[in-house]
Amino acid sequence: MLLVCLFINTHLLYAQSLLGIQVISKGTPDAFTPQRFVPEQPVMAALQQLPAATLPFNPADINIRITERGCVVEIPLGADEQLYGFGMQINSFNQRGLRVRPVTNDSPLGNVGYTHAPVPMYVSNKGYAILINTLRYTTFYCGSNPRRRAIAAADSAGNNTPALSTDALYMSKDQDKGNMIVDIPGARGIEIYIFAGPDMKQAIQRYNLYAGGGVLPPLWGLGIKYRVKADFNQQQVLKMAAYFRDHKIPCDVFGLEPGWQTASYSCSYVWNTKKFPQPEQLAADLRQQHLHVNLWEHAFVNPLSPLYKPLEQRSGDFPVWKGLVPDFADSLTRNIFAAYHDTAIISKGISGFKLDECDNSDLGSADRTWSFPEASTFPSGITGEQMHQVFGNLYFRSFYQLMQQHDQRSYFDIRQLGAFASAYPAVLYSDIYEHDDYIRMIPNSGFCGILWSPEVRESGSVTELVRRTQTAVMSAQTVFNSWYLKNPPWLQYNTARNNADSLLPEATQTEQTIRQLFNFRMQLVPYLYHAFFQYAHNGIPPFRALVVDYPQDANVYNVDNEYMIGESLLAAPLTGTDSVRAVYLPAGDWYDFNTHRKYSGAQTYTIHCGFNQLPIFIKSGTLLPLADPVPYLDAAQPFNITCYAFGPGNATAGLLEDDGETFAYKQGKYNLITLSWKNGHGSMQRRGPLKAGMYKIRKWVPVL
Amino acid sequence: MLLVCLFINTHLLYAQSLLGIQVISKGTPDAFTPQRFVPEQPVMAALQQLPAATLPFNPADINIRITERGCVVEIPLGADEQLYGFGMQINSFNQRGLRVRPVTNDSPLGNVGYTHAPVPMYVSNKGYAILINTLRYTTFYCGSNPRRRAIAAADSAGNNTPALSTDALYMSKDQDKGNMIVDIPGARGIEIYIFAGPDMKQAIQRYNLYAGGGVLPPLWGLGIKYRVKADFNQQQVLKMAAYFRDHKIPCDVFGLEPGWQTASYSCSYVWNTKKFPQPEQLAADLRQQHLHVNLWEHAFVNPLSPLYKPLEQRSGDFPVWKGLVPDFADSLTRNIFAAYHDTAIISKGISGFKLDECDNSDLGSADRTWSFPEASTFPSGITGEQMHQVFGNLYFRSFYQLMQQHDQRSYFDIRQLGAFASAYPAVLYSDIYEHDDYIRMIPNSGFCGILWSPEVRESGSVTELVRRTQTAVMSAQTVFNSWYLKNPPWLQYNTARNNADSLLPEATQTEQTIRQLFNFRMQLVPYLYHAFFQYAHNGIPPFRALVVDYPQDANVYNVDNEYMIGESLLAAPLTGTDSVRAVYLPAGDWYDFNTHRKYSGAQTYTIHCGFNQLPIFIKSGTLLPLADPVPYLDAAQPFNITCYAFGPGNATAGLLEDDGETFAYKQGKYNLITLSWKNGHGSMQRRGPLKAGMYKIRKWVPVL
Repeated sequence: MLLVCLFINTHLLYAQSLLGIQVISKGTPDAFTPQRFVPEQPVMAALQQLPAATLPFNPADINIRITERGCVVEIPLGADEQLYGFGMQINSFNQRGLRVRPVTNDSPLGNVGYTHAPVPMYVSNKGYAILINTLRYTTFYCGSNPRRRAIAAADSAGNNTPALSTDALYMSKDQDKGNMIVDIPGARGIEIYIFAGPDMKQAIQRYNLYAGGGVLPPLWGLGIKYRVKADFNQQQVLKMAAYFRDHKIPCDVFGLEPGWQTASYSCSYVWNTKKFPQPEQLAADLRQQHLHVNLWEHAFVNPLSPLYKPLEQRSGDFPVWKGLVPDFADSLTRNIFAAYHDTAIISKGISGFKLDECDNSDLGSADRTWSFPEASTFPSGITGEQMHQVFGNLYFRSFYQLMQQHDQRSYFDIRQLGAFASAYPAVLYSDIYEHDDYIRMIPNSGFCGILWSPEVRESGSVTELVRRTQTAVMSAQTVFNSWYLKNPPWLQYNTARNNADSLLPEATQTEQTIRQLFNFRMQLVPYLYHAFFQYAHNGIPPFRALVVDYPQDANVYNVDNEYMIGESLLAAPLTGTDSVRAVYLPAGDWYDFNTHRKYSGAQTYTIHCGFNQLPIFIKSGTLLPLADPVPYLDAAQPFNITCYAFGPGNATAGLLEDDGETFAYKQGKYNLITLSWKNGHGSMQRRGPLKAGMYKIRKWVPVL
Repeated sequence: MLLVCLFINTHLLYAQSLLGIQVISKGTPDAFTPQRFVPEQPVMAALQQLPAATLPFNPADINIRITERGCVVEIPLGADEQLYGFGMQINSFNQRGLRVRPVTNDSPLGNVGYTHAPVPMYVSNKGYAILINTLRYTTFYCGSNPRRRAIAAADSAGNNTPALSTDALYMSKDQDKGNMIVDIPGARGIEIYIFAGPDMKQAIQRYNLYAGGGVLPPLWGLGIKYRVKADFNQQQVLKMAAYFRDHKIPCDVFGLEPGWQTASYSCSYVWNTKKFPQPEQLAADLRQQHLHVNLWEHAFVNPLSPLYKPLEQRSGDFPVWKGLVPDFADSLTRNIFAAYHDTAIISKGISGFKLDECDNSDLGSADRTWSFPEASTFPSGITGEQMHQVFGNLYFRSFYQLMQQHDQRSYFDIRQLGAFASAYPAVLYSDIYEHDDYIRMIPNSGFCGILWSPEVRESGSVTELVRRTQTAVMSAQTVFNSWYLKNPPWLQYNTARNNADSLLPEATQTEQTIRQLFNFRMQLVPYLYHAFFQYAHNGIPPFRALVVDYPQDANVYNVDNEYMIGESLLAAPLTGTDSVRAVYLPAGDWYDFNTHRKYSGAQTYTIHCGFNQLPIFIKSGTLLPLADPVPYLDAAQPFNITCYAFGPGNATAGLLEDDGETFAYKQGKYNLITLSWKNGHGSMQRRGPLKAGMYKIRKWVPVL
């Protein structure tokens, strides 16, 4: 098996490529690494089906230098390579020529590389990915700093024309000429994982498959999640649920924020019965309305918590908000944490959690120091620095093992993840709120096996609300996070007015727009569900940058505001107040989702998108199954499907049919439906052991 | 001698306090530390005169933990201690409760602690300073993160009222309760210097005296420095010089920017004779007009430079702007660098340099990577990280040794300094430009033996120009940096219009205001010169925070926009467009510099300050010697002094008399003049070996 090879003499590995994944090692690697915490076995079957690949460089040319200061790795870079990755980067996309420090932080800071989800891995458009297997704070110089060499005098000015502004002065002139330099202070040795292609997408697939394959959310995870105001009580929650159902606004998950607990900063994990006198009844009432309940929490254990005593000797030496920091690097600690949640909370009807505050404090603000210092120590021996890079992964892992034990999938919200988290059904979110950043994080998330939800909170205008909603609908998870809003933001986007019940004059019309956009989401669920299955099964990220699919098209190298959804859809969200934007469409023909207008690709268009539309383009040759909208998702209630065949040729599409909520699909308990459009006629073929149930194909519509 | 003690078993040192300076050590300290590069011997005589002091904590309670990750130092903190320092901090002042990472960076980044001048030292208002003797990037948790302890349940909420905004959520609640935690990743051992008081000021004095005492600039260094546009040629420089003299605007130094060299990014250190056909003649012409010449450069050696070959094997492995990074940690490298400058440049009539770009690139911008990576290696063995923390110190040291050899003082501009730089006659400057920050950096600089010049460049209005000029006049060095301005900014503050020769309608009037403010500076020079002598001789910083003089006054703990100048002046610069500001005056009576109006202290006043005034307050009991303004400074031309006696009592003041330009004062070749105001009569007494020359006392004026 692959895992066995990791500590073998790596010189051997230079010569052989095991399923396109090589490990190079030197010195004494750390005991605590991302690889140590990979939660799943590699998906060998899918790895074996990927084509063989040669790397564009000789791995023997990777130089690892170990000094007293740490390890420095130098990896060849081609002159025209484009680099991506490093986790869910917020304000950068194409990393070539940049210095990137992917470190867990609760917000970006300048353009350092800080992120909720640092992954020490980059992907090249030349068809490979490289992961530095470390939890230490590491800096990547992505060709930004060439080494000194014999310099031709011709390189130099000699005829000095001094710059007359700092911008002119500091324009980078030397970029794109150096190798990748990776600086890992403190390391006494290092392992390097190389995931081969031949293409970028396959390199990403290998990484995801090595980590256990991507996520398949429960079907209900693909619906709408609405988080209510933090101080709501049981009655207010139920009233809000009734509003959704009465107004026929689709919703699948209701989230409760800190107020459900007796203490929340730090956490007691105990229901506040003053506000929620009958929590089990609440959960049952909501489930009856087909609403799954998700509870907010963080990992820091308040002295009031029943978990305090059991974890007191199993925590770090620095508290957070006076609460314990459990040593999640120790499986027994995870088990204790999980067992309590299972018995006390989950068994009472709770479907999922929002795991907050696991993304350090804000390293950029001297007075925001609530999280544990990097110098913290833990009983397991992991350092505070390493813990920060893996804290979300390990925190989530407590719950993941419960899901596996109960054979029940879920779809969490989480504020930190790291490397090898592809299999974790948890979606990142953030307190930051720039819409452009929120969009950029969608294509960025796809490089490194993570998912991102550009949640909607307040807005500055109806237009902003609608544009943000469109983005949320076209993402891995559609979340409205109204933790400080009494009314849904479509009734009043302004926080103060919302909480004063001063609703918009156009509230009804705006509600109708949002309903329409949510309905689009529900229509897309069968397509999305299959795209996620491709993620789980083959490692293909359901949301990914255009460059992943078009690595040779230089026009997409810096496109960070469009992305692919599944095999055939291209999303191009709008921001600001404009009703148009520029959209680059790669080679081939494309169709507007709303108007079915056809565009020839390899060009940039100015595209209009109305409020009641989605800025989506469909590749010619696509068979797109769209469902009739439903108010909630239930695998037992069949989707009524209309199949749209875009373009003149034949086309196929897949649909996944399973129970929608267990891991049985991993044992082959699913059907794969192949929809075919051939010579103007549609047909479907079902393969698999299950009874038909999830889909009814109603109509076939050709679009030319 | 003190230096001998450093590597002695430090347990001994617990028991004995050598001149109030203790060193605690554990493990194997780094070979490269700030202490290794202290340029001067301690000023033993002055150290011996400081009073004995006991620390407010037991040094035996300092805990040093060495783990595989590095060193963690924990130092007791009193509940109500106020902490300051960490070098020239830009956007923080009172550091208590903050996390501070004093790392060399060319601009601030959030509130991380990045600075042009990182000093790993803090000063407590309880009367001591602690320096961590490291060049590693170090994080100080200034009581921000208390360790975990048995937590009373009462500490916790139990009655949860959830926050409803992120601000409310993340308000620091736990601050001010922990010890000082110092995180030094990578270190295998550490030395800690403790400078005792008994008061804050004396702790700072001990630090400065240990490092060789403060700076005494040449007399001309206290005048006005004007830097001309980077693309000026020889004629344009001379024309500008004539403007100053014709218009009777005081000036002592002219600075040339990059255009004087044949190559500047990186540097050739060779005159561009196309623009400057006769550089020696230019220097002579300017000197004849009593203008010293200062040349811009940085340390990165262009292949065109005569220094390239000699330094090629003496440099780091990463270039900067294709230029060598000399290994200044090696004294031979410094000697080569210095010798070239001496022969080729200084000997041709150049008085000083502006040492630019030694403050790393911008760690906050992924695409600003021009400087050498932290992973760089150097022949001496110093790491890139350590080099960044000491690069300015070592760069300047090349020149300092020349000054000493030639027995010629100078006053440089520099963009980076670090610990133990108190004796270096070099003043920090910056590309950042927030006026509030510029003011805050003045009191901050005084905690750690550094000087700061809040230079004036362009402005947004005449008011801004005047307020900035007032601040510059009340600082360690008055610099107008017109490197991108064709005309002086007082003729046109706007860059584009300035360079288009479109001067202000009120140019003449504004010029008159600036002339008046410059004249104030010239009037203050005798007072300032003596304040600097106190710095050199006793280690008392000439510019310092109010808390240094009033450590018991809680009202000044957070005052970062007022500061002391010398013994008796309090400066309170104005910013923005207001003509008034709030000024807190500590206990005692104070007098307005302009109106002589009297204020009772321990109160806050709203103060008006006109354009032709200085926002300065004079402590009652002060004898203030003011000179008649002169167009330039020359120790051979006596100052005509009027002595103002503020307040009803007797008063004294000091004046330093020396040659104004050599280090002879260090061998006692100076006079100290004591001015006395006693019972309504003034008198002067001169002690010292020199002939009288610098001062003529003209008048005595009582102010009541």
